[in-house]
Amino acid sequence: MSSIDSLAQEFGRLPGIGTKTSARLVYHLLKGPKVDLHRLATALSDVADRVRPCRVCGSYSDDEVCGVCRDPSRNAKVICVVEEAYEVGAIDRSGMYRGVFHVLGGRLSPLDGVGPEKLNIDGLMSRVGAEEAGAQEAGAEEVILATNASVEGEATAVYVENLLRPFPLRITRLARGIPMGSDLEYVDGTTIAEALAGRREMARP
Amino acid sequence: MSSIDSLAQEFGRLPGIGTKTSARLVYHLLKGPKVDLHRLATALSDVADRVRPCRVCGSYSDDEVCGVCRDPSRNAKVICVVEEAYEVGAIDRSGMYRGVFHVLGGRLSPLDGVGPEKLNIDGLMSRVGAEEAGAQEAGAEEVILATNASVEGEATAVYVENLLRPFPLRITRLARGIPMGSDLEYVDGTTIAEALAGRREMARP
Repeated sequence: MSSIDSLAQEFGRLPGIGTKTSARLVYHLLKGPKVDLHRLATALSDVADRVRPCRVCGSYSDDEVCGVCRDPSRNAKVICVVEEAYEVGAIDRSGMYRGVFHVLGGRLSPLDGVGPEKLNIDGLMSRVGAEEAGAQEAGAEEVILATNASVEGEATAVYVENLLRPFPLRITRLARGIPMGSDLEYVDGTTIAEALAGRREMARP
Repeated sequence: MSSIDSLAQEFGRLPGIGTKTSARLVYHLLKGPKVDLHRLATALSDVADRVRPCRVCGSYSDDEVCGVCRDPSRNAKVICVVEEAYEVGAIDRSGMYRGVFHVLGGRLSPLDGVGPEKLNIDGLMSRVGAEEAGAQEAGAEEVILATNASVEGEATAVYVENLLRPFPLRITRLARGIPMGSDLEYVDGTTIAEALAGRREMARP
């Protein structure tokens, strides 16, 4: 196989990249300077060589402990639990969260053979229980279960909640409701039902 | 910058890949085995190190002369002229073409500073004129100008046609008309005009 075909095949393995997109990417790189090809190759090798899970939260990092966990301006007593590492960025981009994170690395999904033992739940338990164990590190005051709004995400949240119940902390879940900027006409019935159930008093002027 | 951010930035430089797609690709690769990252990196380096323009047609190849030009089952006397190397594949996939190709490497575009001297036109002239020059290699019998159906593509075709006129060969252009599977309702007026002008007698039963 030619080197062009090999590269097109490798691009084609990536999610959302079909045969045509893959060919377009290869020819785009061929038209540009060679240094671009080498730079992308180096970036890939660097990720393969350097990235590992953060020892504290399980997110990806070049270091043993990730930047978020090392940030002294963050409130380490509020832990937001997410399924995947890329969701950390989504929550951080809201600009409204100054706590830390915990990455489970997936969701409970018996049909796919994913049980609790495959998720980073023990890590969460030791973070939450740190105070009781008399460790220097302070335990948590609040755990926000920010798993996805899917059946598996819900099941995972309920499972983790049950494990957390014995600890003296607030356990919360992200609010459900109508997303900003959407037309009611196009919002599904379940979301509207959740939005009704979670409705709030309007502040009086 | 972390190695993850660097890789996301490199992916983000590719056409059609924005910030979100880029992040999704990075995390997809991180979730998979490291060997996938290394394999993509190697494929990129291989392309950077090996690929060069084919000496005959200007298409990309791992070798001095590309596979199409070396294929003895192809008719080297019919040359299909395209703007870019990736268009070779598009025409070949039709399964109806058994001639060879010539890649111009772009189209005439004065506004972008692309004049005839930046295109691989000299190469085409020497291929077409090979017979007259008394070379072993046979000259062309037909040149199909398959530049794109854009203003620049048309201008390029007319320019090349004028250069080819002195040679004793057929000069053709791809037919214009209604694309297969399309509804007339959605076909633009210029295309319909071209399809009317180029209409053909139906074969009688």
